[in-house]
Amino acid sequence: MFYQRLESAIQSKKSNVCIGLDADKSKLPDHLPRTTEGVFEFNRSIINATAPHASAYKINTAFYEAMGAEGWAMLSALVDLIPKDCISIADAKRGDIGNTAQKYAEAFFETLSFNSVTLSPYMGFDSIEPFMNYADKGSIILGLTSNQGSSDFQKLVLQDGSTVYETVAKTVAKWHETYQNCLLVVGATHNEELYKIRDISPNMYFLVPGIGAQGGDLNTVLSAVGKRVLINVSRSVIYASQGINYATAAAEAAEKLQGQINSFFEGA
Amino acid sequence: MFYQRLESAIQSKKSNVCIGLDADKSKLPDHLPRTTEGVFEFNRSIINATAPHASAYKINTAFYEAMGAEGWAMLSALVDLIPKDCISIADAKRGDIGNTAQKYAEAFFETLSFNSVTLSPYMGFDSIEPFMNYADKGSIILGLTSNQGSSDFQKLVLQDGSTVYETVAKTVAKWHETYQNCLLVVGATHNEELYKIRDISPNMYFLVPGIGAQGGDLNTVLSAVGKRVLINVSRSVIYASQGINYATAAAEAAEKLQGQINSFFEGA
Repeated sequence: MFYQRLESAIQSKKSNVCIGLDADKSKLPDHLPRTTEGVFEFNRSIINATAPHASAYKINTAFYEAMGAEGWAMLSALVDLIPKDCISIADAKRGDIGNTAQKYAEAFFETLSFNSVTLSPYMGFDSIEPFMNYADKGSIILGLTSNQGSSDFQKLVLQDGSTVYETVAKTVAKWHETYQNCLLVVGATHNEELYKIRDISPNMYFLVPGIGAQGGDLNTVLSAVGKRVLINVSRSVIYASQGINYATAAAEAAEKLQGQINSFFEGA
Repeated sequence: MFYQRLESAIQSKKSNVCIGLDADKSKLPDHLPRTTEGVFEFNRSIINATAPHASAYKINTAFYEAMGAEGWAMLSALVDLIPKDCISIADAKRGDIGNTAQKYAEAFFETLSFNSVTLSPYMGFDSIEPFMNYADKGSIILGLTSNQGSSDFQKLVLQDGSTVYETVAKTVAKWHETYQNCLLVVGATHNEELYKIRDISPNMYFLVPGIGAQGGDLNTVLSAVGKRVLINVSRSVIYASQGINYATAAAEAAEKLQGQINSFFEGA
């Protein structure tokens, strides 16, 4: 059910682009007020301008929690602004024991009406199950992340020569066989690892951050993971311009990325 | 600086008890309204009644996020209610790349003024560093959790025969040497593993959930980890009674646990 919705969004929009709304008061265009209202206006304009080029929007909860209760209220208003033909992602990276995970699932899937949420796998199956139980919602689980710290624990080598992140990918692929609503987060800053993870889970969608500000290469990623992908871009799109043309500039950056991805697959 | 405050709280209160405020509308005593106001009144009474017996209060963000922006506003009001001679813990289990982690640190340490926060280690050093940079705040990092799912990834065996959770414990112990403000979360439902983790990090404080509703044994835990510990109890204290005497019953349950811990160490 969630996968149908996701694929329908990608196909109808002809876009694998996910736009990350990591709006930071201190980075708003100069003419906008550095207030909660300014952040909302910024997000509203970015969503409206980029909507023709995106199939998903990812809202990073940290940026809203830093604003306190007003920020949390804005999360709710933002979810309502995301076009109904796009997928909404709460980038929250939650993970806790079962009864707590159930509360997080209620927070993001019921109170806030997100279509999907990002989750940390560290605490295992019973920390993820309450989310997967929502058949029409997506559970987007960290596999191999884009940051340098991904080497600290995710790349530890196990007795059988495989790694922690491969075991996570294999396990999530199994969960997906049962629940049919899982995605993996795989950072664009890894090369050969992307091929390994795609081999492990040929049918799952990946959410790939790390293109743009973090330095991942688009064509390398697409070669490795194929069409079942949402390419997330945040800073390189939403801060494409600091001027009054910021929304147009964001739309152009999103359209460019959309075109690059489509060209890659048409050429392939 | 954080450790001084933590040790001062434990010594002045003569208590290693941490009370988890996992308040759920559906589990409130029968006479309280099942509203946000009811939850606040419940928490206020529990904090006031148990304060003589606790050195820390742990607020589980999931239960407040499930209530939406009102719940997030309550987090702020609750932090203000926690006695100044106790440690406040945001049980949030956050973990994200550096610029996002910085926003979470601002959310919990600045906007909400918590003394400490729980964190997931999956994304490695750069996901934890922004929190550790606050010298007077505590970074409480998941080591081996109390739930069944802890076997899925935390107990994976590495090439050298050690496990993921041991590597996490060793790594956090190294971070603590530098930053002096880290704790580990170690679940009470493990026995021999508690000894291993204490061997790895003889000087760090552990936050131990899993006594009470989850079935961990107090004396086993104390034998293994010694005095540098906060024993967390949530459901078995805050829901000790469903009647109008719920706060008194919670105080009695907290006092009993406080006494059991003190007796164990006095007898040892």
